[in-house]
Amino acid sequence: MADETTTEEPREDGRYELDQERVHEIVDAAHAGEAELVAELLEPLHPADIADLLEQVEYQDRVAILKVYEPEIDGEILSEIDDSIREEVIGLLSPGVLTDAMRALESDDVVDILEDLEEPQQQAILKTLEDSDRLAVQQALNWPEYSAGRLMQREVVAGPEHWTVGEAIDYLRSRDDLPADFYHMTLVDPRHRPVANVTLGKILGHPRDVKLQDIAEETFRTIEATEDEGDVAYAFNQYHLISAPVVDPDGRLVGVITIDDAMIVLDQEHEEDILRLAGVSDESSLADKVIATTKRRFPWLAVNLVTAILASLVIAMFEDTIAQFVALAVLMPIVASMGGNAGTQSLTVAVRAIATKDLTGSNVLRVIRREVLVGLVNGVLFAIMMGAVGVIWFGTPMLGVVIALAMVINLVVAGLAGTVIPIILDKLKIDPALASGAFVTTVTDVVGFFAFLGLAAAMLL
Amino acid sequence: MADETTTEEPREDGRYELDQERVHEIVDAAHAGEAELVAELLEPLHPADIADLLEQVEYQDRVAILKVYEPEIDGEILSEIDDSIREEVIGLLSPGVLTDAMRALESDDVVDILEDLEEPQQQAILKTLEDSDRLAVQQALNWPEYSAGRLMQREVVAGPEHWTVGEAIDYLRSRDDLPADFYHMTLVDPRHRPVANVTLGKILGHPRDVKLQDIAEETFRTIEATEDEGDVAYAFNQYHLISAPVVDPDGRLVGVITIDDAMIVLDQEHEEDILRLAGVSDESSLADKVIATTKRRFPWLAVNLVTAILASLVIAMFEDTIAQFVALAVLMPIVASMGGNAGTQSLTVAVRAIATKDLTGSNVLRVIRREVLVGLVNGVLFAIMMGAVGVIWFGTPMLGVVIALAMVINLVVAGLAGTVIPIILDKLKIDPALASGAFVTTVTDVVGFFAFLGLAAAMLL
Repeated sequence: MADETTTEEPREDGRYELDQERVHEIVDAAHAGEAELVAELLEPLHPADIADLLEQVEYQDRVAILKVYEPEIDGEILSEIDDSIREEVIGLLSPGVLTDAMRALESDDVVDILEDLEEPQQQAILKTLEDSDRLAVQQALNWPEYSAGRLMQREVVAGPEHWTVGEAIDYLRSRDDLPADFYHMTLVDPRHRPVANVTLGKILGHPRDVKLQDIAEETFRTIEATEDEGDVAYAFNQYHLISAPVVDPDGRLVGVITIDDAMIVLDQEHEEDILRLAGVSDESSLADKVIATTKRRFPWLAVNLVTAILASLVIAMFEDTIAQFVALAVLMPIVASMGGNAGTQSLTVAVRAIATKDLTGSNVLRVIRREVLVGLVNGVLFAIMMGAVGVIWFGTPMLGVVIALAMVINLVVAGLAGTVIPIILDKLKIDPALASGAFVTTVTDVVGFFAFLGLAAAMLL
Repeated sequence: MADETTTEEPREDGRYELDQERVHEIVDAAHAGEAELVAELLEPLHPADIADLLEQVEYQDRVAILKVYEPEIDGEILSEIDDSIREEVIGLLSPGVLTDAMRALESDDVVDILEDLEEPQQQAILKTLEDSDRLAVQQALNWPEYSAGRLMQREVVAGPEHWTVGEAIDYLRSRDDLPADFYHMTLVDPRHRPVANVTLGKILGHPRDVKLQDIAEETFRTIEATEDEGDVAYAFNQYHLISAPVVDPDGRLVGVITIDDAMIVLDQEHEEDILRLAGVSDESSLADKVIATTKRRFPWLAVNLVTAILASLVIAMFEDTIAQFVALAVLMPIVASMGGNAGTQSLTVAVRAIATKDLTGSNVLRVIRREVLVGLVNGVLFAIMMGAVGVIWFGTPMLGVVIALAMVINLVVAGLAGTVIPIILDKLKIDPALASGAFVTTVTDVVGFFAFLGLAAAMLL
C-alpha cells in the first residue's frame, strides 16, 4: 500500500521560517524610530517568533527594536527568548514594562526565567511580583534544579473523589482563576492525595449525575516533585500523558505538569545529547559571542589534543619502521580513521539506547555481541578492499596483508569499545553522551596505529 | 537564588526502567507454559512497557511469551512495538486476536502500523477492519508519506461558529462516539472551514449562554494535510499547540492532530538527526540482526574509506619529505584530528540551527564570521601548545613553527567548512545531518595534511 502512494517527503521550504523581507523592514523602521510601523509589522507574529527575531538580528538592531517596541514586550516574549540574550533584553526594559510582563505570567514561567538570571536581576524581578506570586515562585525554587517541582504549574484543578459531573461543572464555573491550560480534573482523597484523573472531554461527554470516578482514566500516574525533569519527559513520551499531577514526598498534590512543558524538556535533552556527542557545550547558542563560544569549544579540543598526542606516542614507537618503509605513513591514517568512524557509529547507538532506556540487562550482552560481529563483518569487507588497494598502490603483497589484518582488528575493537565504554560510563554516573567520544577515539587511534605499525614491523622488515 | 538551592541534578536510577527481575520471571514462566502467571506479571505494566519488554528479550523468549500471552495482546501493544519486530510479532498472532486488536484502534494508529508492513500483511489487516474503518484508513493512505494527513486523527469534534456553551455541552453529551482524547472544539463556518478553537477548559468554565466565539483561543492555526510531519512537530513545539485542526487544499476540516502525536514525531526526528550525524542509518534499531546492522553501517564507512584514501594521496605527495624527517609522520595525525574535531563541532551547531530554523538570512554571515574567528582563536591557542610540544619533543624549533601554522590554518578552515557546507547542502535540498560529516572531514583531513607537510617541505628541508 505504501508503494501506491508517493514516497517523496512533502517539503515546502520556508514554512514557519521568518520572512526575511519583513525582518529587514522591521529593522529599518526601528532604526528610523517609527514605533507604530514596527508594532504593526510585529503584530501578526507569535511571541515565539518575535523572540526568534530578536535572537537573530545584530545587537544594535535588537537595541533599536527594543527602544521603540519596548512598551509592547510582554511576559510571553520574555519567556520564549533564548537564555543567551534574555539577560541583555531584561536589562534594556524599563521597570514598569518588566513588572507588567512578569505579573502576567504563570508561576512556572516566572521560575523558568528567574533560574538563569544573575542574583541582582533575580531580586529585581522578585520585587515586581505580588506577594502571593512571590511566595509561589520562592517555593518552586526550593525544589532542586531540573526537578519536576521546578517544572510544574502550581495552579491545579482538583476535586474530591466522590464528585459527580454536575458538581465538577458547577465548581469550574464558580472559579474565576482557572489556569489558562488544563486538561484533567484530578480527584483527591480527603488528605489531598491524588487518586485519579478525569479528562475534560469525559466530563463534557457525560450527564450531570454520572460519578467522576466512573469515567476516570484507566491508567493513572503521579510524578514526584523531586523527580528529574528528563525522567518526567520520558514518562510523558512513553505513556502518552497529557498532564500529570505532581506530589510532594507525603503524596499530596502540589502541582501539575502539562505535556507542552514536557515536550520542551524532551527537545532540550535531545539538543544537549546531540551537542555533547559532538563535543560542544550544551549551553551554547547561535547568539553567543566569539569569546564565549571559544571557551565552550576549547575543553573538548584540549581533550582531543591529549588523545591525539597519545596516538602520536604510539607512532613514535615505530619511527624506525616508518623510516625504512614510508608507505606506512601514507596508509596508517586510514586504519585509525575507519576505526574512529565505526566506533562513533557504535557509541551513538549505545548512547541513544541508554537515553531511551532500551539498553537493559535483558539485551546488553546481545547488543555487545552484535556490535563486535558487525565490526568483524565490516572489518573483513574493508580489509579485502584495503588489502587490494595496498597491493596495487605499493606493489607489496605483504603490505596488503598487514593493512587488512589491522583493519579487522580495529573495527572489532571499535564495536566493542563503542558499546562497552558508554555502558561503563553510565554505570559510573558519568553522562555517556559527553565523555564516550574521547575514550572511544583514543582506543581506536591507539589500537589502529599499534596494530598496523606493529604488524608491519613484525611482518615487513 | 539558584545558588541557595542544591544544584545537583536529582537522579534516581532505574526510574521507568523495566525491572530486570520481573523480566526474568516472565521469561521463565513463559517457557514453563504458565499462561496465568505470565498474564499476572504483565498485567501491571503499561502497553508501552510490554512492547519494550518484547523488544528487549531474545527471539526464542519472545516466541514463548507470545505463545502463552497471545490472547491478551491488544492494539495498543501492537501500536507501541518497534517497527523492527512488529512484522514478526504480527506474524505470530492468530487471525482472531489480530482482528480484535486492530478494531480497537483509532484510524491514525492503524495507518501507523500499516505503513511499515509488507503488502500481504497489509491486506490481511485491512480485511480485518470494518467497512467504514477500512475506508478511513485507505483515505489516510492517500496522503503522502510523512504528511500531516497520515498523522492526523480523522475523528474530529467540531460545531458551527454561532453555538453557545450550552449547545456545545448538549451536543457532546449526545455523541456516543467521542474520540478518546480531544482538547478543543473546533468552530467551523457553513462550508466546514475551521475558524476558531475553544479549549474544553473554557467551555467548562463558562455559563451555558456564553457564545463559543467569545471564549475562543486568541491565536489560531490550521495545519495543511500535505504539510511535512516534521514541520507539524516544529509548529506544535514553537507555538505550544495542544491540538490543531487539519485542512484539505480547499481549507475544509478533515482531521485533527494532537500534541502527543507531534511529540512522537519530534522525538523521531531528533533520533534521526543524531544517528545521521554519526553515519548510522536512521532506520536502525537495537533489535536488528548482525547482517541488517552491517548493511546499514557499511555505506558511511565506505564513504569514509574514500575520504581517508584522498587524505592518504595528499600524504603520498610528501613521501620524500617524510622519509627525510620521520617526526612528520608522528605529528601529522594531530593536525588532522584537531581539524576534524573542530569541524564536527561547527557542523553540529550549524545542522541543529538549520533544523530549528534558527539559522536564517538575518544571521548567516554573522555565524560564519563567528565560527571562523573561533577557529582562529582556538587555532592560535593550540598552535602555541603544539608548537611547544614539537620543540620539546623533537628539539627542532622550526618543526614547532610548522605545526603551529598548520594548526591555525586547519582550525580556521574547519570553522569555515563546518558552517558553510551544511548551509550549502541545505540549499541543495540534501539533508545536512546526513552528508555534512563526510565533506567536512575530507576538507579538514586534506587541508590538515597538506598544510602541515607542505609547510614542512618548504621550511624544514
